[in-house]
Amino acid sequence: MKFVSYIYKGNQGYGIVSKDNTKVIPMDILLKKIGKDLPENFLEFIRTYSDSLIPNLQEVINHNGNGTISLDNVKITAPIPYPRRNVFCLGKNYADHALEVKSLPGGKAAIPDHPIYFTKVADPVIGHMDKVLIPKDYTEKIDYEVELAIIIGKDGKDISPEDVESHIFGYTIGNDISARDVQTKHVQWFKGKSLDTFTPMGPWIVHKSEIEFPVELDIRCKVNNEIRQNSNTKNLIFDIPYIISDLSKGLTLRAGDIILTGTPAGVGIGFSPHKYLKSGDVVECFIEKIGTLVNVIE
Amino acid sequence: MKFVSYIYKGNQGYGIVSKDNTKVIPMDILLKKIGKDLPENFLEFIRTYSDSLIPNLQEVINHNGNGTISLDNVKITAPIPYPRRNVFCLGKNYADHALEVKSLPGGKAAIPDHPIYFTKVADPVIGHMDKVLIPKDYTEKIDYEVELAIIIGKDGKDISPEDVESHIFGYTIGNDISARDVQTKHVQWFKGKSLDTFTPMGPWIVHKSEIEFPVELDIRCKVNNEIRQNSNTKNLIFDIPYIISDLSKGLTLRAGDIILTGTPAGVGIGFSPHKYLKSGDVVECFIEKIGTLVNVIE
Repeated sequence: MKFVSYIYKGNQGYGIVSKDNTKVIPMDILLKKIGKDLPENFLEFIRTYSDSLIPNLQEVINHNGNGTISLDNVKITAPIPYPRRNVFCLGKNYADHALEVKSLPGGKAAIPDHPIYFTKVADPVIGHMDKVLIPKDYTEKIDYEVELAIIIGKDGKDISPEDVESHIFGYTIGNDISARDVQTKHVQWFKGKSLDTFTPMGPWIVHKSEIEFPVELDIRCKVNNEIRQNSNTKNLIFDIPYIISDLSKGLTLRAGDIILTGTPAGVGIGFSPHKYLKSGDVVECFIEKIGTLVNVIE
Repeated sequence: MKFVSYIYKGNQGYGIVSKDNTKVIPMDILLKKIGKDLPENFLEFIRTYSDSLIPNLQEVINHNGNGTISLDNVKITAPIPYPRRNVFCLGKNYADHALEVKSLPGGKAAIPDHPIYFTKVADPVIGHMDKVLIPKDYTEKIDYEVELAIIIGKDGKDISPEDVESHIFGYTIGNDISARDVQTKHVQWFKGKSLDTFTPMGPWIVHKSEIEFPVELDIRCKVNNEIRQNSNTKNLIFDIPYIISDLSKGLTLRAGDIILTGTPAGVGIGFSPHKYLKSGDVVECFIEKIGTLVNVIE
């Protein structure tokens, strides 16, 4: 089941993508059929219902899963354009990537002994086909990083690795756009990762019931049709059970929180000479069983 | 004018503290007198009205500023218990403190050439007299950091230093509680700063009209009545106009955002042997013209 947020005829909405990926069934129609109230957006949907309605929604869709609005007629937005808190991120969580970015601050010890956490502020998170805007007088070294994004489904603290899957709602694709010069200048990575439009995500959230656990999905990034990153999420140094149990030590994760799990090798700074993004570049982030997130640089 | 958030008879409220600091005038009473709607909490108040009602509120208070509820009868909460985004923070922004923490990750270059930004997730931010809870099996090196907190009053990006004051709503006191062992272990500072209850703030927000600009205020921290930190905000390496104009480069700051401006020397890790916090310790954070934020460690 794929959950998509969109604008249709000027109104924000969210719903479920039809099986053939061409239409959307608006959530208000689905929830009416099962007698439930409509939360105002998809974040509130997760906070209100978490997983509890999945079987009911599945049943409605099995009987009438054709969709009512063509995806061609909506503007897809990020699934959660305004997260309640910053997006949680992992740095250097694929070994090949850890080795290629030794020149970044804190990059001396290539393979980390413990997960490296930081955050991105994204307000809004941008969606599929939205433009990443480069502030030209501020940065010249814009990089891409395709990442598997986890959406938390229910609150939890000190979550055991065995319980992690029950705290996940689903998965989407994130592109952790980074201004390498700003990231380096300020020592801590936050600022260079947090410029406006630097967090594309989507195109939709796939419910965890469609993704086998442990999560082993091909992950790729193309720039102007050239494959730059090409790996599988099984290569994460710290896997999903470890990340979520470790991150939740002493820190309550909330339904709707988003965790970007790190990026594999092949980012622009990893090439010699560097291959940074420039205006007009098309970045395609692909993850198996989820889809492709496309953004244009401007 | 001091804005306080509180719980009174089980209900969340906010209002203005009386001149003698003993009572609170609830905002619903004040806004009714000037014919304005009551936003649901103080964050929404700032987002809705920013500075625009200050003259009207001042006039109402001048005529009837005695307060209606004794502060003794309310539970003060953080002014903004649930910020819309993580709290923005500066690291090593007082020279004496930068020198005392060289052993922390990224601490080799003592005086930073550029501001070091990171974030804390605080959900909720805890208030005056609330307890800081130490997860004992996870960390043993809990530290205090008194900091001047800026509350942003209106949205802005690429704010010029000259315009900074117009984007500020007011100021409060923050204590950037830090688990030094966790902070070190994860390289980036975020996790060790973001455990539950690790962001006490308050007791109230003082409107900028009561604080002369540039902001030069004595700032102190006492642990069990022993003065540990003792400085003045004029000693900030990067001052408030610089911080806000620099942080807002390419990144839109929002009304209600909170920026912790860094801490002066005298934190626990700066002593030899280290003076970390332990259960029962009372931490008092004082800033001139704002007040004192008291928290107990447990």
